[in-house]
This record gives sequence, C-alpha cells and structure tokens, in this order.
Amino acid sequence: MAPKIKDVAKHAGVSVTTVSRVLNGEKYVKDDLKERVKRAIDELGYSPSHIARSLVLKKTNLIGVIVPDITSSFYSTILSTIERTASRNDYNLMVCNILEETDKELKYLQVFKQMRVDGIIIMHEKLNEEIRELIQSLDIPFLFSSVKPADQEFVSVIIDDYAASYDVTRHLISLGHTRIGFIGGDMRDVTSGQNRYLGYRDALTDCGLAIVSDYIRFGDYKTQSGHALMKEILANETPPTAVFAVSDDMAVGAMNCIHDHGLKVPDDVSIIGFDGSQLTEQVRPRLSSMEQPILEMGEVTVETLLAMIKGDPNRTFTDVILQHNLVDRDSCKAYNGQP
Amino acid sequence: MAPKIKDVAKHAGVSVTTVSRVLNGEKYVKDDLKERVKRAIDELGYSPSHIARSLVLKKTNLIGVIVPDITSSFYSTILSTIERTASRNDYNLMVCNILEETDKELKYLQVFKQMRVDGIIIMHEKLNEEIRELIQSLDIPFLFSSVKPADQEFVSVIIDDYAASYDVTRHLISLGHTRIGFIGGDMRDVTSGQNRYLGYRDALTDCGLAIVSDYIRFGDYKTQSGHALMKEILANETPPTAVFAVSDDMAVGAMNCIHDHGLKVPDDVSIIGFDGSQLTEQVRPRLSSMEQPILEMGEVTVETLLAMIKGDPNRTFTDVILQHNLVDRDSCKAYNGQP
Repeated sequence: MAPKIKDVAKHAGVSVTTVSRVLNGEKYVKDDLKERVKRAIDELGYSPSHIARSLVLKKTNLIGVIVPDITSSFYSTILSTIERTASRNDYNLMVCNILEETDKELKYLQVFKQMRVDGIIIMHEKLNEEIRELIQSLDIPFLFSSVKPADQEFVSVIIDDYAASYDVTRHLISLGHTRIGFIGGDMRDVTSGQNRYLGYRDALTDCGLAIVSDYIRFGDYKTQSGHALMKEILANETPPTAVFAVSDDMAVGAMNCIHDHGLKVPDDVSIIGFDGSQLTEQVRPRLSSMEQPILEMGEVTVETLLAMIKGDPNRTFTDVILQHNLVDRDSCKAYNGQP
Repeated sequence: MAPKIKDVAKHAGVSVTTVSRVLNGEKYVKDDLKERVKRAIDELGYSPSHIARSLVLKKTNLIGVIVPDITSSFYSTILSTIERTASRNDYNLMVCNILEETDKELKYLQVFKQMRVDGIIIMHEKLNEEIRELIQSLDIPFLFSSVKPADQEFVSVIIDDYAASYDVTRHLISLGHTRIGFIGGDMRDVTSGQNRYLGYRDALTDCGLAIVSDYIRFGDYKTQSGHALMKEILANETPPTAVFAVSDDMAVGAMNCIHDHGLKVPDDVSIIGFDGSQLTEQVRPRLSSMEQPILEMGEVTVETLLAMIKGDPNRTFTDVILQHNLVDRDSCKAYNGQP
C-alpha cells in the first residue's frame, strides 16, 4: 500500500500539519524539520502526486497516446489528425513512442497515471496480461485506434480489416491477375496480421485460386522488410504478377525491390499497399492503396474518447467501424498475359 | 500568487490537517467536510500538483520534447533515436507535436512544468518573446536540437548549416553544373532558412556564378511544397540543370515534379536534398543528400541534456556542432553539356 501523509509524519516524528507545510513549500518551517520530512518522504517512497491523484478535482485536458513507431507513415499521419482534433477541443496530446517494446508501454501507462491524463489512446494491439490489467485498473477512459486487440470488451475505432483485404485481393483478381503475392504483417496482430491475411486467403479461395505459400511472406510493416521479402518472392521461378502488401511502407519497399531488379511497376509487377498514408503520393509511380480513412479515423478516435471522458451514462461505447476505400493510383494495371 | 493549502483551509473553514486528509484520500473524513474542502479547492483554483512541484523530491525521469511536425521524415527519424537513447538511460519521453503553432508550444511548456519533467528538448526555433520568457522561467534544463534560435545564450546541438549548404552547392558546381536552383526554407528560421540560403549564395558567388532569382524559391520543408516550387522553377525558359532543396521531403517533391513533367532525375535534372532521413532510401532514384548525423545528433542531444540535468558545476554548456556528411546516391550526375 502506498504510504500516506500520516506515515510520513510518524516516520519523521512531526505532525501532519508540518508535513503539509513542507509539501506546500511554506517559508516558516525550520530547516531541520524540513530535512527530516524530506528524508522521511524519500525513505518511505511517498509520492506527493498520490495526493493529486486521489482527488479528482478537475480535468488536466491531457490525452496520452501510445504509438508503436512514429517513423511509420501511417502513424505519423494519423497522429497529426488526432493532434488537430484534440487541439480544437482544447486538449493537449502526450505522445509516447514505444518502439514495439512492451516494457515501455507499461512504463508510459504508469506515467500517464501520474500525470492524471483524462484519457488514453492506444494504437498498438500486442497486450500482455500485465498491460491488460494495468489499463483496466487505471480508472482512466481509454480506447484503441486503428487496432483491435483480441479482447472484445475494449473499444476500438477501426476499419473492417478482413473485408478491406478481401476487397483488395478481389480487385487484383478482377484485373486478371491469378498469381497474387502477399506481404503480410505480424500474425500475432489480430487486426493487421490475422484479418488481413484471412481476407487475402478467402478472396483467392472464393475465386477458385490456389494459396501458394511461396508467394506469401510476413514482415514488420517497414520499408526494408517489404524490400527483403519482395526479393524472396521474386526468386520464385514463376513469380506473381501482382503483390499486395499490408502497409504502404512495405509496399514501397516491394516497389523499390522490383525497380532494383531492373523490372518495372506496374508493367512487370503490380503493387498495392494498405493505409493511404502520405507516402503513397511521395513515390513514383504513385502507390495504389487500400485506404483507411485516416482523417476521419483520427477525428472519430478523439471524439469518442472525449465522449467517454464526459461519461454520458446513456451512451454505450462499442467499436466504431469506418469505411475502407480502395484508391487506385499508378502502381497497378491489368494483367497483360505476359509472361 | 497561487493559493496555498492554508488558504483552502481558511476558505473551507476547516483545519489544514483536514484539508491534508481530504487531499490524501483518507477514509475517516466526514462527507460534508470533504465537500466543503473540495468546493474551496475548486473556488480558489488550488492545484494539488503545486505541492508536488514545490518540493523537489526526486526526478520524474521524464523528458519533454517539442517537435514542429512529426510527419516530417527528419523529425520522425531523429525522435526514434532520441527515444532509444533516453530509454537506455532510464528516461521516458513525452513528445508534443506543435504543428508549427506558437500557442501550442506555450501550452505544452506549461504542461511540462506541471508534469515536472526533468528536461526539455526543443526542435523548433521560432520563439516569440512570450515563449522565450516562459522557457527561461521554468527552472528546467532545456536545449535545442537540430535548430539554433537567434539567441546566442541557448544551447543547441546542430551541424554547421551554412557550411553544409556551401558544401552541397560546391559539390554540384564540381559536377559541372552552372545553373543551380535552390528550394529553401523559411527565412525566419536562422538554421535551416537563413544559413542554408547563405551557404548556397556564397558558394555560387565564390565560384563566379550569378545568383538567378528565378531559380530560387522558398517553401515549408514538405513534399507538396517541393513539388509546387519545382514546377515554378521548371517554367523558366532555360531551367537549371541541378536543384538543391534544403529538406529531403522537398527534394522528393521536386524529384516527383520532374518525373510528372516527363523528365528524368538525374539525366535531365540532378536533385540533392538535405537531412539524410529514411525517405532518401524509400524513393527511386535514391536521393543524394547532405546528411545530418541523425543518430549521433539524437544521442548527443539526450546525453547533453542529461548532463545538464545532473548539473555538473564544472561543466559549461555550449553549442555542440556535429559533422555534416554528403551522401551521394542516385539523384545527381555530372552535367553533360545538354541542353
């Protein structure tokens, strides 16, 4: 149990009032008393912020955000939208970049607690038991954005990743492609790993196409990973004529790999990405992509969280599923029968 | 003056001990007393975090970071390095994305104060008088990273932007280019605006080349801006054969514009960027760039700030100037005399 102010007083051999006066920085406390109180505080590990915490006086107007990796074009884009929406509502954002490390997520959640943030947005779905318990014990409204952890009880703002992935694959099939490669995410991720893979697989199956394991690789959503995995896929004797990568960053890596092999996108291989981040417009050919409505997703995330913070008793909070949208740019074309 | 605990007690008509007990969440306080204390706290605007603030018990191990725009490839790359270095030293990072808005910077600096961060990293150099005063009044160690505001008294970790820009321009001249365009930054920015422009201008002058204002444009460091400004530069009857853009994002925009005009980089126009962000490797042709040592800059930033936090009285903190490094990839070539 966390030590209380009276424990500090007892330990220091002073009255609670004296501890309060030291804590409050009042001038008329003798130096030796001050020292004793400070020592007692140190020795007991008493944290004055517990005081603040225990009394919900008013909002801090702070929202804590946990992102797996801000170098990802998707996260940096959605974060800017979240920032703008929060700001319009007079909330400030504290962004914590956990670099995919679980330890960091735990630490930052504790920091959020100390800071008394009003709400938490999590864009990372790999929760271990410890994190799961901590989040639930914080007594701070929270939701997941762009991801859906395995637990059904947590609120998420997402698209239907399975359907989106199914639609991408059907799109490539409708262009005449029958050999369609897949660069997937981490299969421990429900949203972007499992669901996107299952959508791809089922679309092929529904169209009577075989699942060719040599055309399928799983990466870490980053450009380098897309490049390396595309290299493996190209090593097939008969490589695919189209490849679907489940992040724009990996799709750009795949596109670069094709270029580095002296081949052309989309003439030799069509490439389609996923996310609709700013990177789609930064590369040439411009990248076709299954777009998440990033702007809307950022706005709905903040608005839903603010409603949770306000705590409307008549509103039940459930997942918000936004529309996905395939945007065809210049990286896909119809299969021309070659080779 | 901020209200103190005794003011709350007086206002509520209770003893300081009672206020302490309410603040501390102790159980054996009568409900009506609790209510009176809470109302007094509300009415006076008393913030219990002042208690915490006034007594520097121990470090929070938090570093606040202010970035102008995390969608910039430079900032997202350096932030990851800062995060890793801080983490190795057991510090957590709170990133605030101010989207170039001064109001936000003010707000976040106040939040940092409330949170009792141990140190602050600022990657934004447009300081107005209010921000300048606030930073200095916070009594929290701070430094600037990658930028150098006009005030000489603040510590910065930077490269020599003037020399780097001079070297880029001399490099293009050494490749035989005499018509060299320039896509600059905001001239209100000392570091990336003024110094980079002056380096370009002086290199041309030192080599006996004219400054052609039709070849010179200033943008906002982003891809779209680079694209739009390159379009204006290409509209010259005799366009430049090489263009230097002061951010990788703008250089990529310029490269895309050339591609969209049916021209080729580097065959028709050489392009060189500035920063050395991950974007240089994400595009084709890969972007040559004057690189800031991003990894080292992130590390030195954190290490210097930690030394400031420790407060070694024998150490004087001054600017740290890191080495710049021109990395030639595939977007520049020697001028072939055409056209």
